[in-house]
Amino acid sequence: MRQVSPSTSLTLEVRYPSRSGMLASITSALAAQGALIRAVTITETKAGYTSRAIDVEAFDEQHELAIAAAVAALDEVELLQTTDRTFALHVGGKITVENRVPLRDRDALSRAYTPGVARVCKRIESDLAAAYHLTVKGNLVAVVSDGTAVLGLGNIGPYGAMPVMEGKCMLFKEFAGVDAFPLCLSTQDPEAIIATVKAVAPTFGGINLEDISAPRCFEIEERLRAELDIPVFHDDQHGTAVVVAAGLINALKVTGRQVGEIRVAISGAGAAGIAVSNLLLALGVQDLIVCDSVGTLYPGRPKGMNPYKERLAQRTNRDKLDGTLTDAVRGAEVFVGVSGPNVLAVEALTTMAPRPIVFALANPIPEVDAWAAQEVAAVLATGRSDLPNQINNAIAFPGIFRGLLDVRATDVNTTMLLAAAEALANAVDPSILCEGDIIPSVFQPGLSTLVATAVAKAARQTGVARYLHASLGELGELGA
Amino acid sequence: MRQVSPSTSLTLEVRYPSRSGMLASITSALAAQGALIRAVTITETKAGYTSRAIDVEAFDEQHELAIAAAVAALDEVELLQTTDRTFALHVGGKITVENRVPLRDRDALSRAYTPGVARVCKRIESDLAAAYHLTVKGNLVAVVSDGTAVLGLGNIGPYGAMPVMEGKCMLFKEFAGVDAFPLCLSTQDPEAIIATVKAVAPTFGGINLEDISAPRCFEIEERLRAELDIPVFHDDQHGTAVVVAAGLINALKVTGRQVGEIRVAISGAGAAGIAVSNLLLALGVQDLIVCDSVGTLYPGRPKGMNPYKERLAQRTNRDKLDGTLTDAVRGAEVFVGVSGPNVLAVEALTTMAPRPIVFALANPIPEVDAWAAQEVAAVLATGRSDLPNQINNAIAFPGIFRGLLDVRATDVNTTMLLAAAEALANAVDPSILCEGDIIPSVFQPGLSTLVATAVAKAARQTGVARYLHASLGELGELGA
Repeated sequence: MRQVSPSTSLTLEVRYPSRSGMLASITSALAAQGALIRAVTITETKAGYTSRAIDVEAFDEQHELAIAAAVAALDEVELLQTTDRTFALHVGGKITVENRVPLRDRDALSRAYTPGVARVCKRIESDLAAAYHLTVKGNLVAVVSDGTAVLGLGNIGPYGAMPVMEGKCMLFKEFAGVDAFPLCLSTQDPEAIIATVKAVAPTFGGINLEDISAPRCFEIEERLRAELDIPVFHDDQHGTAVVVAAGLINALKVTGRQVGEIRVAISGAGAAGIAVSNLLLALGVQDLIVCDSVGTLYPGRPKGMNPYKERLAQRTNRDKLDGTLTDAVRGAEVFVGVSGPNVLAVEALTTMAPRPIVFALANPIPEVDAWAAQEVAAVLATGRSDLPNQINNAIAFPGIFRGLLDVRATDVNTTMLLAAAEALANAVDPSILCEGDIIPSVFQPGLSTLVATAVAKAARQTGVARYLHASLGELGELGA
Repeated sequence: MRQVSPSTSLTLEVRYPSRSGMLASITSALAAQGALIRAVTITETKAGYTSRAIDVEAFDEQHELAIAAAVAALDEVELLQTTDRTFALHVGGKITVENRVPLRDRDALSRAYTPGVARVCKRIESDLAAAYHLTVKGNLVAVVSDGTAVLGLGNIGPYGAMPVMEGKCMLFKEFAGVDAFPLCLSTQDPEAIIATVKAVAPTFGGINLEDISAPRCFEIEERLRAELDIPVFHDDQHGTAVVVAAGLINALKVTGRQVGEIRVAISGAGAAGIAVSNLLLALGVQDLIVCDSVGTLYPGRPKGMNPYKERLAQRTNRDKLDGTLTDAVRGAEVFVGVSGPNVLAVEALTTMAPRPIVFALANPIPEVDAWAAQEVAAVLATGRSDLPNQINNAIAFPGIFRGLLDVRATDVNTTMLLAAAEALANAVDPSILCEGDIIPSVFQPGLSTLVATAVAKAARQTGVARYLHASLGELGELGA
């Protein structure tokens, strides 16, 4: 199912004789190519010629080229320039470091830098906690990746990973006012990654690990959580788990089920699969089966195990089922896919309990044909923005870190993750909550404040908050 | 000699009956304390009372307290609040990470983040050089410190060092448009520092090492220069050396001397002393003696040596003088102090060649009594902003890194440092060049562009420029 997307959009700059019908010939050519015209503006009219910039959406890069070729081939139309809007947005990078006050005279210079700064340094040296309010630390998160599991692209290394990490930093700022900075590492050795993050930690109030492959990510996160005094959060694990839990809470509401009575089948035992499983167990799911590419997880399975899968196998699959994913979903009320494209036939959904809940989150191609699954599932959620119920980590991590920073948290724990999930679930207004609307939009005003408030409260309740005052979220000073 | 400074300034918020003479009684009390009044504003007039904010400069923190107490003691004057303006400027940190484009709708989100970002990632994966223009790398410098030698404060650790590093980042942005980001490390082990910087290097276009103690800093810098493909610059060494060389070039002009004919005595064999010595040798100084706290450096000296001092001793002190600093300066045309306060009696200056050049750069208290030295020296330079000829690294490093980034340099070498020094020296207009004006001000418009242009040119000439186009500096697009 080919769909145009703003992610593959072009600006076509054209020039043609100023004559009735010329623009129509261009728009007709674009329509014939299946391009979606987003905007048309005049850039110049001169000497009997008109120049225009036309923004169009395409299916993919091949389609972009075909569109440009079709316009270039038109009689009397000159194609001056073609700009891919996604690449254009990236030129020069997407974030910038700015000064909060200008340094235009000696007065400012002598307070922000020498000699005045020395007094601030000494204050912090004698009271390390002062770093939270006298430096950027109090609002700063490191987005750390080794580039081993970037989006669906795999191990593309630190340079290739940078645009994703910069984008992540943008989301932090846009949705929660958090300063975030990308660090893409030249090493893929877990010990070296742990040592590097520990070395840079004094600068930051929290660490967001990102796109680090499993099972390495588990050890890295566990070690850093234990050895650092600031929260360490692997978004691919826990961000995904929080949003899945939030969606499931509401899916159970709209289908009239209790969390303790359902069976959940999970496809995927990587970073997301293991974290989702653990959080759903903490949420109260009693009957849960996890599958990876080998089959169902059970204790002592001879093939394709690691200590993290083994630990999870001990707590799940209560009937010790040794089977396939298709076996696992049979009779289940809930399917959660956090694995890869097309691993489940749509027919398998008909073997589930009546009115099943299906979360097929592999992106861009879900675990099961989503368009066919819509006919079977009572609730269908995917990672795609062009279907209902998009499961998108961006609704969770900005608010979670806002809450962590607001209380100067030392850790992030399961209680806090569940609080975030509940806050997200409750953010969907009861008057609109329905099968096709179980999860809030990333653009919902004030969403990160709701999450931050819940996380901050849970941090205080569980003793990991250094700062016991009300969070910005609670004061209502944050968000639109 | 006590002097008020904007670095120790207060805002006094006061409230008093709206009556003639009240403000005069406050300003009289401030004058009696020796406070300098910078600004007076009305913040409220209500119910027969006037509230004002009064900004005053003090000598130091003790003086701030005395000033506040004096105002609080006045009849009918209520001191509502006292704010130290330096601490106030630091609250919340001095820098922020901002988005270059807003993410207000799905169109922007799908280009800056998923799914559009994947195409940019793949482009960079297949052409790593593209990271320079499609990510922040091309304009980004890491300011790295372990907090072992911060200003004159010594080993105050990474938390205490943060305000200096943030301030440094501000200078990069304000004076050269360079994005800079502080990384204060929790380790002081050279191998761990080297490993950490190498690990984070893919994100950055250059590394500025800062306030790392000698001799550790030499090994760290040498190793990183050899092992990284981006320039590594220790500002305490090379920034200082460039500005000293610039000042010396002009001091020789105004005193009518040739560089090959002078004797230079240097006090200090730490980071700055060794780098200054090496750059002055490269500049053409033939006769140079370096002293540390033990005495003059000579090959095989039995006490207080390290490999870096030994290497320098082999190239200096051609008469193998074994003596004190006072012995070393006798007959010298130039004294350069990069050591500590009051290590040289002003009488020693009278034993120098006639009309000596004296750079006493220890800050805030110079190596020799600067006010007395003004009577003896033909040219006197210090690190202080309240005396002529301030030697301030801030005139060098922003422009140097601007040039390095503009050509995507792989290294920074001595040719480039000399080019920066020459550019700084030439930035002083010949019509104003004189004994009291040998060095440009940090606020001189376009200064970093001159430095950047010279550095970029030298980078191309020495084969360390990846990018051979004209720099922004050369195109005249940079600076005021």
